[in-house]
Parts: sequence; C-alpha cells; structure tokens
Amino acid sequence: MVEIRCPFNESLTQQNGFAHGGVITSILDSACGYAALSVAPAECAVLSVEFKVNMLAPAVGEAFVARAAVKRAGKNLAVCAADAFAVKGGGEKLIATMLATMMNMRSST
Amino acid sequence: MVEIRCPFNESLTQQNGFAHGGVITSILDSACGYAALSVAPAECAVLSVEFKVNMLAPAVGEAFVARAAVKRAGKNLAVCAADAFAVKGGGEKLIATMLATMMNMRSST
Amino acid sequence: MVEIRCPFNESLTQQNGFAHGGVITSILDSACGYAALSVAPAECAVLSVEFKVNMLAPAVGEAFVARAAVKRAGKNLAVCAADAFAVKGGGEKLIATMLATMMNMRSST
Amino acid sequence: MVEIRCPFNESLTQQNGFAHGGVITSILDSACGYAALSVAPAECAVLSVEFKVNMLAPAVGEAFVARAAVKRAGKNLAVCAADAFAVKGGGEKLIATMLATMMNMRSST
Repeated sequence: MVEIRCPFNESLTQQNGFAHGGVITSILDSACGYAALSVAPAECAVLSVEFKVNMLAPAVGEAFVARAAVKRAGKNLAVCAADAFAVKGGGEKLIATMLATMMNMRSST
Repeated sequence: MVEIRCPFNESLTQQNGFAHGGVITSILDSACGYAALSVAPAECAVLSVEFKVNMLAPAVGEAFVARAAVKRAGKNLAVCAADAFAVKGGGEKLIATMLATMMNMRSST
Repeated sequence: MVEIRCPFNESLTQQNGFAHGGVITSILDSACGYAALSVAPAECAVLSVEFKVNMLAPAVGEAFVARAAVKRAGKNLAVCAADAFAVKGGGEKLIATMLATMMNMRSST
Repeated sequence: MVEIRCPFNESLTQQNGFAHGGVITSILDSACGYAALSVAPAECAVLSVEFKVNMLAPAVGEAFVARAAVKRAGKNLAVCAADAFAVKGGGEKLIATMLATMMNMRSST
C-alpha cells in the first residue's frame, strides 16, 4: 500500500473552493505509479498508460490522501487501484477512486 | 456484496479457447448493476452509465464469478467496483476488475 | 476503420428487450481489437488490456454496428476508439462509445 | 468544440522534464466540462462524474491544447471526448485522449 498526502492550499481550488479534480487525480496517479514501481524490476521506471477516476464527493478538507495497491503485476504492465480521502477533523471521507494501468520502462525515458 | 456465477461453456469462448472478454464483462456489469440496485430506492431500476474493465489473466476455469460492491451511492448515481475470478480445482484466480457508474431510473425504461 | 456488424436477435436482449450491454461491448471490443491488429507487426496477435464503455442510448434496432479506429499505435500497445450504432429503418443512431488499450502478443497466447 | 490552452512552464513538469500527467488531465477535464456546459440548461453548473485518460506520448512542447466535443447530452448527464496536443514549432502532436461523463447540477454546488 502506497500513500501520498497533499495538504489543502487555496492555490489548488476550483470555482467552488474545493480542491480541483486535477489535484486529486495527480495524487491518485502518483500513488498508483509508486505502487507499480514497488513491484517493478529494479532497473525499471514506471509510466501511466491510462487511468479512470470517479469523483465521489467534493474535496473539502485540511489535507487529501491517496492510497494505492497493485491488483496485478505482469512483466510489462501493472494494474493498480487507489482511493482518495479528504482528511477533516481527524476523520477521513472517500472522495475519489482510480483504476489505472502502469507500464514498466526498461530505460529511463 | 453481490455475486454472479457463470459456468464455463464452449459457446462462450474466443479464439484461444478462453471465455470471451464480453462474457466476463457481462457478469461484472450485472454484478455492479445488482449491487447498485441493492442500495437504490425501491421504485428504481438501474442502468449502466459506463464502466471500465481491466483484463488481468486469461479466463480459464470451470466457472467464473463476479463480486461487486458499492463504493458510493448518491441520489441518482452509484459507483461500484467488481472483481471477476476463474474457479478451477477449488481455487480462485483474479482475472478481471471493473469500475462502473450506475444510474437510478425512476420509471421502468 | 474497422467495422463489425451484429444483427438483432432475441437471445441477445436484456430485461427491457434491448440488446444487452455485454453484446454491444463485445462488438466494440472486437472492432478495437481488429483495428489494433491492422497496425500490429505481422507475427503478433492482439489482446485487450482494458477498455471503458459509455452507454449512450438503448440498443434498439435491426442490427448493431461498431466502428473502430487506432488513435495511437506504439511498439507494444495501441489505443483505439470505437463507436456503436443501432441501425433502424435505414438510419443509424449512436448508442455507445469505447476507449480501449490493446497489447501486441509476440507468440499466440 | 471547446479548446483550452496551457503554455509550458517548468513548474508543471514531472521527473523527466515533461509536463505532468495531472496538468494534461486538468486541461482535458476542463475542456470536457465546458463542452458539457455549452449544451446544459442555462441554470446548470457542470461537475465531472468520471473520466478516463490514455497518455499517448510525452508532453513536450511550447504549449498544450485540449479540444473537447460532446458525444451525447441527456437531461442529467453528458458524455464528452477530448484530445490533448503538444504544440511545438508550429505543429501539433496528439499526446493524450479522454472520455468523460459530466453531470448537470441544478443549483450551484
């Protein structure tokens, strides 16, 4: 399980004052990337082939955290799932979820 | 958790003798639909808005089972995740995963 | 552009009498697969890595046709987009759309 | 057709010096959102329900442009497709593609 945390910042908001979907997507994508990297051969970097995100609730909170796990790792591709949560007053609320395909890159690209 | 099971049948295979991706997608989609229906208002039917499937391993087995859960249910939409497994010799192997958006339909459509 | 056509048949319907989403998905997936195959090296077969489908309208018609094109082909992966139409009374109506990732397989798998 | 343009800026890069996937996703998502808004009832705002992105080539260029169109607009949901291009030396190269579901919001949320 990989976890990436991003504190709230006004520069990250959209028109309603919530964190922008692109921010939540970025931490989900990064968490999936590091999850894939954790099971990739040592000489490999990892690139995002594609991902799908469902936005589940407004991103309102003091911080946002994405947690990713590898569903299946093959020789070239890894499929990862990740959830994003808003952290507020000590609790967490599910705000988005991602299903992603990552690719191992033999040379640094 | 909703579970849908489909026994292997030669009429369901593709060119390699595995169950066709369309078959696995159908049981994943149906499992997500029933999961959404289980949390929908009583007068509602459920339609698939969209889904994404990752094929993870060849569908080889005596039967295939899809298990779905609701990640979040709103007034009109529900987001569901489902995994499909091949059943073989008493064991199960993960072969596909789905992330889907379902819509409540107030009248039967 | 690859085109796959499937005539309407009662055995392919869901609870409302429309063609089942799994059927439409299958012709979209097959069309994407053949589109990818048309640009793959001669010795390669093609497998679906993943796809996303949006269902846009009920599948009502005398036949259904899926048309796919390659958006980008790399050494190992091809990304394809496809639309599905219901054919009725000489006209066509868009009923679903797919965005898919296909993988070249060097040996027959 | 909606077009959103973002000039290259070093603060937007990832580890290889390319524009980050989150940046490209953000302009694709915004282009889809405005495309949906262009066909939504006057009193509606638009929210992203979900989107899928395929990354097709490294985001290298002087600027990046996303162009979106509505594939189908219903009463509550619109399905949009968008392509992102890198602009370099007067030419454009396809770098990513999105398929997205947008929702009309009757009150500002």
